[in-house]
Amino acid sequence: YSGEGGAIDSNKQEIFQRKKNAVLVNGVILNGPITDSKAGEKFVEEACKIIMEEVIRKAADVTEKVCEWQPPEKLKKLLDLEMRDTGEPHQRLLQLCQDIIRYSVKTNHPRFFNQLYAGIDYYSLVARFITEALNPSVYTYEVSPVFLLVEEAVLKRMIEFIGWKEGDGIFNPGGSVSNMYAMNLARYKYCPDIKEKGLSGLPRLVLFTSEECHYSMNKAASFLGIGTQNVYFITTDERGKMIPEELEKQVQRARKEGAAPFLVCATAGTTVLGAFDPLDKIADICEKHGLWLHVDASWGGSALMSRKHRKLLHGIHRADSVAWNPHKMLMAGIQCCALLVKDNSDLLKKCYSAKASYLFQQDKFYDVSYDTGDKSIQCSRRPDAFKFWMTWKALGTTGLEDRVNRALALARYLVDEIKKREGFQLLLEPEYANICFWYIPSSLRKMEEGPEFWEKLHQVAPVIKERMMKKGSMMLGYQPHRGKVNFFRQVVISPQVSREDMDFLLDEIDLLGRDL
Amino acid sequence: YSGEGGAIDSNKQEIFQRKKNAVLVNGVILNGPITDSKAGEKFVEEACKIIMEEVIRKAADVTEKVCEWQPPEKLKKLLDLEMRDTGEPHQRLLQLCQDIIRYSVKTNHPRFFNQLYAGIDYYSLVARFITEALNPSVYTYEVSPVFLLVEEAVLKRMIEFIGWKEGDGIFNPGGSVSNMYAMNLARYKYCPDIKEKGLSGLPRLVLFTSEECHYSMNKAASFLGIGTQNVYFITTDERGKMIPEELEKQVQRARKEGAAPFLVCATAGTTVLGAFDPLDKIADICEKHGLWLHVDASWGGSALMSRKHRKLLHGIHRADSVAWNPHKMLMAGIQCCALLVKDNSDLLKKCYSAKASYLFQQDKFYDVSYDTGDKSIQCSRRPDAFKFWMTWKALGTTGLEDRVNRALALARYLVDEIKKREGFQLLLEPEYANICFWYIPSSLRKMEEGPEFWEKLHQVAPVIKERMMKKGSMMLGYQPHRGKVNFFRQVVISPQVSREDMDFLLDEIDLLGRDL
Repeated sequence: YSGEGGAIDSNKQEIFQRKKNAVLVNGVILNGPITDSKAGEKFVEEACKIIMEEVIRKAADVTEKVCEWQPPEKLKKLLDLEMRDTGEPHQRLLQLCQDIIRYSVKTNHPRFFNQLYAGIDYYSLVARFITEALNPSVYTYEVSPVFLLVEEAVLKRMIEFIGWKEGDGIFNPGGSVSNMYAMNLARYKYCPDIKEKGLSGLPRLVLFTSEECHYSMNKAASFLGIGTQNVYFITTDERGKMIPEELEKQVQRARKEGAAPFLVCATAGTTVLGAFDPLDKIADICEKHGLWLHVDASWGGSALMSRKHRKLLHGIHRADSVAWNPHKMLMAGIQCCALLVKDNSDLLKKCYSAKASYLFQQDKFYDVSYDTGDKSIQCSRRPDAFKFWMTWKALGTTGLEDRVNRALALARYLVDEIKKREGFQLLLEPEYANICFWYIPSSLRKMEEGPEFWEKLHQVAPVIKERMMKKGSMMLGYQPHRGKVNFFRQVVISPQVSREDMDFLLDEIDLLGRDL
Repeated sequence: YSGEGGAIDSNKQEIFQRKKNAVLVNGVILNGPITDSKAGEKFVEEACKIIMEEVIRKAADVTEKVCEWQPPEKLKKLLDLEMRDTGEPHQRLLQLCQDIIRYSVKTNHPRFFNQLYAGIDYYSLVARFITEALNPSVYTYEVSPVFLLVEEAVLKRMIEFIGWKEGDGIFNPGGSVSNMYAMNLARYKYCPDIKEKGLSGLPRLVLFTSEECHYSMNKAASFLGIGTQNVYFITTDERGKMIPEELEKQVQRARKEGAAPFLVCATAGTTVLGAFDPLDKIADICEKHGLWLHVDASWGGSALMSRKHRKLLHGIHRADSVAWNPHKMLMAGIQCCALLVKDNSDLLKKCYSAKASYLFQQDKFYDVSYDTGDKSIQCSRRPDAFKFWMTWKALGTTGLEDRVNRALALARYLVDEIKKREGFQLLLEPEYANICFWYIPSSLRKMEEGPEFWEKLHQVAPVIKERMMKKGSMMLGYQPHRGKVNFFRQVVISPQVSREDMDFLLDEIDLLGRDL
């Protein structure tokens, strides 16, 4: 009997003492627990101190590195990743925690601008700690009473902000999954028989989305058996917004081909450019042709919290479904993603139910309409609404609004600075918090904008990115996009970020790239 | 300018002081952060104390209630769920945390036996706290260097335990999602064109699984456009195991119908009975007919860690893919679910790639084969492997093995006790940690086993369940199943649980139900 790894050594004797009336089955002593809860609690306390010092306190400190870059093969050697037969003692484990933190990217650092999430929100963080400690799964009221009620309350408010009188929804693991949910729901609405009979023998189902849409549209279409060729990409204007006239043409084309159009996926806040499709005009076309309108507002949905900026999503109340990720600009922590549905006739349940009798017994002693498991493609599901709820409680609606307003004001400030500075060039005037721009090193500033210029400029961003990662001073994404050579995409989210960080960003790029 | 809710009040003046050179854009001051990090850190520290006291320390205490039951409408009144315009002060938020914890089910209580997860694991808990504090997303090495290497290391070991020489895999949000991944992967392998062209015009694809399989098979088939009617359910024997001869017949039937069989989903550890399908014989049939073999070992996979019990999964090395959830018997915390794939020719990436240029730039300065995002249906993804890794490091392989052995020894002990006690009747001799039994109150003990007996017995478990929930003494699931009236399903997982808890379980059921 070897006990629980290294953890238990100190109390082993005591535990053996307690086992005077030992019951042995298959050579295993079954009396008393085999974990040393005191030692376990102490370990958690000590680890929490490390987390507090090394992650949470440092999150507010711009003098700390954003990352401690190591290439994969070297990092493997620096970390002791191997899992062995014997467990490690607590001191060693705490050292491992230090190492894990040290070499991880500090996504809560004020100068982490690399993705559509950033910063630290103390309230959602507490909710996340509570979640992990309680380890719930939300499918029945029986095992998750509080978290199901919280989800209901949060969905209700999000539905209000969309502008629907009523609706339904479900939190799920990511905007990509929300988009899949919506695609399947639209298909079910179009032809409920597909749930049982599948797509075999049916005409080709076709959906429409802009060429600036998130890549999850293709993933969803292939996963759902629709096929990526049946995603018709609609041309966008120079700002990345879907052109409604082009949509109309494509719907007609699909009809002529004998295909079955069923869905339009508009985007509110595209991933790279931050563009908002003209929802109202798109809704007109959907109405005319009887198509489900889904809005992927995973990124842009948070603008709904701001009275000043919600006009970006004008017409969203006409959507049939909306994907909205509070883990992005509202900082609820990854993942916190809602799919919201206008229908209130239990469409989600009809579409997704499998009626597992071991979970959803109908002879329970409470109102089983609170059991949401049959609305989900998952079985176990995390209480992600709770993280957003805690932040909302802490800041109030006005506090959330302030965050959005400030992020967009900072974006505006950065745009103005880019315009003022030599060597920086905006890709386009942004609508939202994505600021796309080129840095042009002095060696290229006098060159004509021909093929050679673009080819050389294309190589600038990757080099600056490498240098900033190795220095650890900040993290910022770059990409080529639709014929445009590599450019930086700056995203402003966190309330920890200030104008000084915007100035730093431009100074630092110039510093890192001026010799190129 | 209202600041960040209630949180900031104390430091408001100081912050205004700091903003002497205020830059205003759209009425928003952009100098300095708007969050008060000191107050935020203090809030996190105080909340952590509550979590430590109210959740973690009490997890080891059987005298605490498992749940503080309240019906939905009453609980809504007890909790202050409403999100208002103005934020709440920290003291009020801490009170809310207390309430959330109070009315939540203590899934880490030694007498929570309600689901296929239970107990507290201090190591995975620390990993989860680190994850939440760092808030990573695993899709590129650039933003998640450590967690991607950890995932690679964990997958490698899990693959070894399955018995494959090589393989691939991905952690994802749930066994249901793992099963969907596998179904889609098998379909892609069967006909790669489906990714682009979809299912329209193709013959009917058919898959096979046992009638005891998890309900996610139906969910997956409908979500993927295959249709639930094209899931052919194979008869099981009296222990809930798929009958290979029946599988052979059904494959032939599908062929005769002109359908296209492509996949067999065997189950290793069914949800209700804990049955293991005969994998070796099923693999023979799959080989003969050229069918992909997926094994849903979400629940039973953990037996692979035990040299004594891994024979339950004899033949699993012949599978093409395996779903295995370390968040169940290995207690890694919800969710921790791996899909493992034998193929090593990058099938996952070929099947799932969408090649988003803003994430997966090919001109990065490191080996981009470490970027795993294109193997996933998600975009953002949590580092779930890390939780399991931490526990594995802490306990060692032998410590994990001890846990499995002990859980199954406890299950064996409970079975023997049930056989000894009057009024308890086993449904069947279990293979694994699911012990299914009826409690027969004294009023029914002399009744003949006719329709009236079964009808009355059917009503017993729900009443006892209601009473135990209202008392809060333990939580245990019941269900009707395939013609059998409501019975209890006891599941033993946690190393905190002892023989005394097994005795208590039976005593308590008798106490709560003897008057029925």
